[in-house]
Amino acid sequence: MNGSLSCGPPEQEGIRIFAIPGIPLVQPGDDLAALIVEAAGSAGISLIDEDIVVVAQKVVSKAEGRLVRLADVMPGAEALRLAEETGKDARVVQAVLDDSNAVVRARAGVLIVEQSGGWVCAHGGLDHSNVAPEEEETVALLPADADASAAALRASIEETTGAAVAVLISDSHGRPWKMGTVGVCIGCAGLPALWDQRGLTDLFGYELVASEECIIDELCAAATLVMGQSSEGRPAAVVRGYRQPSAEDAPARSIQRPAEKDLFR
Amino acid sequence: MNGSLSCGPPEQEGIRIFAIPGIPLVQPGDDLAALIVEAAGSAGISLIDEDIVVVAQKVVSKAEGRLVRLADVMPGAEALRLAEETGKDARVVQAVLDDSNAVVRARAGVLIVEQSGGWVCAHGGLDHSNVAPEEEETVALLPADADASAAALRASIEETTGAAVAVLISDSHGRPWKMGTVGVCIGCAGLPALWDQRGLTDLFGYELVASEECIIDELCAAATLVMGQSSEGRPAAVVRGYRQPSAEDAPARSIQRPAEKDLFR
Repeated sequence: MNGSLSCGPPEQEGIRIFAIPGIPLVQPGDDLAALIVEAAGSAGISLIDEDIVVVAQKVVSKAEGRLVRLADVMPGAEALRLAEETGKDARVVQAVLDDSNAVVRARAGVLIVEQSGGWVCAHGGLDHSNVAPEEEETVALLPADADASAAALRASIEETTGAAVAVLISDSHGRPWKMGTVGVCIGCAGLPALWDQRGLTDLFGYELVASEECIIDELCAAATLVMGQSSEGRPAAVVRGYRQPSAEDAPARSIQRPAEKDLFR
Repeated sequence: MNGSLSCGPPEQEGIRIFAIPGIPLVQPGDDLAALIVEAAGSAGISLIDEDIVVVAQKVVSKAEGRLVRLADVMPGAEALRLAEETGKDARVVQAVLDDSNAVVRARAGVLIVEQSGGWVCAHGGLDHSNVAPEEEETVALLPADADASAAALRASIEETTGAAVAVLISDSHGRPWKMGTVGVCIGCAGLPALWDQRGLTDLFGYELVASEECIIDELCAAATLVMGQSSEGRPAAVVRGYRQPSAEDAPARSIQRPAEKDLFR
C-alpha cells in the first residue's frame, strides 16, 4: 500500500483525486465523519494536511435525517397546481415547496426553485435515488445548513486524524443553456469559496477583469469524476495536491448571487 | 524524472491532473500541437493512450489567428446603443456582435450573448487579457469551430506521439445564480460529451432520472484548477486515469440546449 499516494517530482505532481472506497450504507444518526475515516484507514489512505475531502450531499442528508416520508405529506393548493403544471407527484412538490424560498421556473417536467439554503436548482435538490427500498416513499432534502455540516465534518475528521483537511459537500445540478449535470459545491469548510484574481495581472501586466474563479465548484466537479452518480456507492473522495489560494476561508453560501443582482430569475 | 507519472496500487490511483509546463507564448500561425508535444517532452511527460489533454481557448484562438484589431472595427447603431447601455467600449461591443447569433442580456456592466458557435456567455467569450502589449488594441475571439480545433489538435498529437489522447478546449464562464467563473468545455474530440446514466440504476435498483453527467465540463473544471487564469502561463494540462464511459464520441456542441427548450433566454 502507498498510504500517502505521493510519487514523482513535486513540480509534476499536480492534483490527485481518488475515491474513498468501502463506505457502508449511511443511516440516519450515523457518525459520517467516523465512517469516512474508518473507510479511508481500511483502504490504506492516510489523510494529510490540505487534503480536500469531498462528500456527496446524499449521505450527509441521510446521516442528518433530512428525510421526508411522502405518506406524511399533505399537498396544499399551490402544490396541487404546480403538480398539474409540471406532471410531478403533488406530495413531492409539497416537500419541495416546504424547503424552498421561491419558485423560479415551473413547466412540464421542470420545477426549479430557490431552495431554503439559497441554492437555485431542480426540485430543490430533493431526490429519491439511493434511498433503501423499505423507505420507498421517502425523499431526501438538502442539508439544512450544508456549510455547518461541512464545518462539523471537518472538525471531527481533524480531531480523529490530526489532519487539517478542508471539507466540501457536493451535489449535481443542471444548468441553463446546457445539457447535463455537473458536480457543484453546496457546503464548504476550510477553503475560500472564490479565488479572487481581480487584483492579479496577466502575462503582460493587464489587470484581469471578471476573474473570480469559483474553486469550490471546480473541486466538486473534479471529485464527481471519481465518485459517480449511480450505483457505484462512492460517496466521498479526496482531492490532494491542490495549491490553495491564500485567502480567508468562506462558506459555500458566499457564492450565491443576490437575487436582485441576478439576471436569470 | 517519472515519465509516466504513475505509482501506487491501481485501485487507489484515481485521477491525476498536471499542467504541461514551458509552453512558449503562442503566436498566430503557430503549430500548437507541436508546441504542446515539445513542452511535454522537455518536462519529461510522455503522453499515453486515454490521456485527456485540456487546452485553454486563448492559445487555440491565438494560434488560429482569431484576433480582431479594435482600430479596424467601426461600431454600428446597435453596438453604439448597447455600448451606452452596458458602459462597454463600442468597438468591443461591435466585435462581440459580429461573432454572435443573439443578445441574451444587456445591462450596466453586463453583455451576455449567444456566441456564433452557440455558447451563451459574457461578451461572447471575447477578451483582452494575455494579448501582448504591442497588440494592445487587439481582442481574441473564440475559435470559429472549437470542436474542429480539438479534432485537429488530437489528430496531430496522436500522429506525433502515437498516443490516442482526447483533446478538450476549455474556457472560463460565469453562471446564472452564482458568483465566480468555472472552467467549461467548448471543444471536444475523442470523448462522449455527456455520460448518459439514465439507463443506470442506483444502489437500490431505482432508475436514475435526470442523470446525464456533463463529463467534459467537469474535466475542464478540474483542469482549470492546475492551469490558472492569470499570469501563470500554463495553457495546457493533462487529466490521466479518468475511467471513461463506453459511449460514442460526441462534440462539445452536443451539450448546447436548444433555445426553444431553454427556460433562461
